[in-house]
Amino acid sequence: MSGDLQGARVGFIGLGLMGRAMAEHLRDAGASLVIHNRSREVVEELCRDGGMAAASSSAEVAQQVGSGLIVLCLTQTSAVEAVMTGDDGLLAHIEAGALVIDMGTTAVAATRLFDQELQSRKSSLIDAPVSGGQGGARAASLSIMAGGAEADFERALPLLQTLGKRITHMGASGAGQVCKMANQMIVAQTIDAVAQALTLARANDVDPALVREALMGGFADSRILTEHGKRMVEGDFEPGGRAVCQLKDVREGRDLMEQSGLDFSLLRANLHNWENMIAAGDGDLDHSALIRLYENKIDRE
Amino acid sequence: MSGDLQGARVGFIGLGLMGRAMAEHLRDAGASLVIHNRSREVVEELCRDGGMAAASSSAEVAQQVGSGLIVLCLTQTSAVEAVMTGDDGLLAHIEAGALVIDMGTTAVAATRLFDQELQSRKSSLIDAPVSGGQGGARAASLSIMAGGAEADFERALPLLQTLGKRITHMGASGAGQVCKMANQMIVAQTIDAVAQALTLARANDVDPALVREALMGGFADSRILTEHGKRMVEGDFEPGGRAVCQLKDVREGRDLMEQSGLDFSLLRANLHNWENMIAAGDGDLDHSALIRLYENKIDRE
Repeated sequence: MSGDLQGARVGFIGLGLMGRAMAEHLRDAGASLVIHNRSREVVEELCRDGGMAAASSSAEVAQQVGSGLIVLCLTQTSAVEAVMTGDDGLLAHIEAGALVIDMGTTAVAATRLFDQELQSRKSSLIDAPVSGGQGGARAASLSIMAGGAEADFERALPLLQTLGKRITHMGASGAGQVCKMANQMIVAQTIDAVAQALTLARANDVDPALVREALMGGFADSRILTEHGKRMVEGDFEPGGRAVCQLKDVREGRDLMEQSGLDFSLLRANLHNWENMIAAGDGDLDHSALIRLYENKIDRE
Repeated sequence: MSGDLQGARVGFIGLGLMGRAMAEHLRDAGASLVIHNRSREVVEELCRDGGMAAASSSAEVAQQVGSGLIVLCLTQTSAVEAVMTGDDGLLAHIEAGALVIDMGTTAVAATRLFDQELQSRKSSLIDAPVSGGQGGARAASLSIMAGGAEADFERALPLLQTLGKRITHMGASGAGQVCKMANQMIVAQTIDAVAQALTLARANDVDPALVREALMGGFADSRILTEHGKRMVEGDFEPGGRAVCQLKDVREGRDLMEQSGLDFSLLRANLHNWENMIAAGDGDLDHSALIRLYENKIDRE
């Protein structure tokens, strides 16, 4: 499964919980990493372990990597913009032949724009957002949905194979992000549907734990029912995926829907629910805690 | 798996595609059936094959079955009401000790009311709606969610085991129907979410078939994505589950939600979509054809 990155010089920008685990896998596969992160503490810690060198800016990453690969693992589109643009940004310093691999969830329009900007500098962009969360990052079992030119995808593949198991080339630039949006819309609305169903059961004195079990294996079965349904039944909202991140992705989905001339009433209703849940102070809980929005309606009577 | 019903006298009312397959399993397990159906053709056909005797009314089923079991497999609450009430209805003719097993999807309030009416006649009701469709009925692999008194459930169990594989006693009278509503709400909204996601992909020139494959195995994975998503990708809307039946169940879900003092905006939006889809003439297609509601928005541009 592990790609051979022996001796490859790879830039890595964004060392949060996901990015850090991914950078360590690349190092373990033999890559020589140049790393940069807004908060410096994690950079110093990783460099102490060897196999990684610190860069003090995106510009320095670009200069040190030359015509190599630069991975971005950032939390949102505005962070990608900050890394790309400005005097110290990648666009101003990228070298010809470099390939940027954006593994965060970034707006489709911004992705296509940055790809064009990089193309005009004889470099290019692969969008390669992931699904599978921190657990998938640690286990190198992420699902990766990639967009970009075929040759760039082939070039990125050994690196992606070091990080994930299910790697699909979805199409041209932005296609990976479109697929990620599709993923997040389904996740967000399925959590909502399961939360409604379990609440309706509880309001009618039927045990939600029994309902979850009875539905598993039938047409209502899903990874969300199995995993997030269990969290809802047990009231265990220690975050895997935080609700604030879910809100961010559903907002990106809403934007893409509007840009595509479409209008999905369930997406809008679901977005409103995430906003209400977070306004109620539950944004740092796991996204399965959306059920509290409904359960509170029972308790209040 | 097959329960031993040798010699048991069982009434069976409602011999549609589901009911007919179920009645045949009961006969094959040794039961002696007394059958009744609004349309007489299927009754004559089944009686020709042996092991079943025709009754001309619900009253006659009650009289012939005596203190035995009577299965109802009807399409909606109004059909159950028609069988229960009136001069020729079960309530007027049921004998003490009889147990009615309602395997259709019937409103929770009506279920509880009929249970009380039967109790006052020293008989009783088990609500035992099923999931798994015609395929599950034919294969005797239905999931069955039962509500009612423990002793009645135990009494019905050998019969239920002849028809299904996953049989759960959910609680008191109506609890099986509450669980079925939970099931149908999740199915209806997940179909909607998958339809939105695949449409968003297509509107952005990303292949929906690739999206479905990339999402399988991740957090967006579900039985609906796998099976109904495949129908959507292939445009194959030959009915398994017809959209008109889905609308009926979502309406029952809306009613139960309102009776429970709850308000789910996604359920209301989803109900509206089924109404629009059926108004557009697609009611007899498989429920996965909901995607046509969205795809038409792309084509119109």
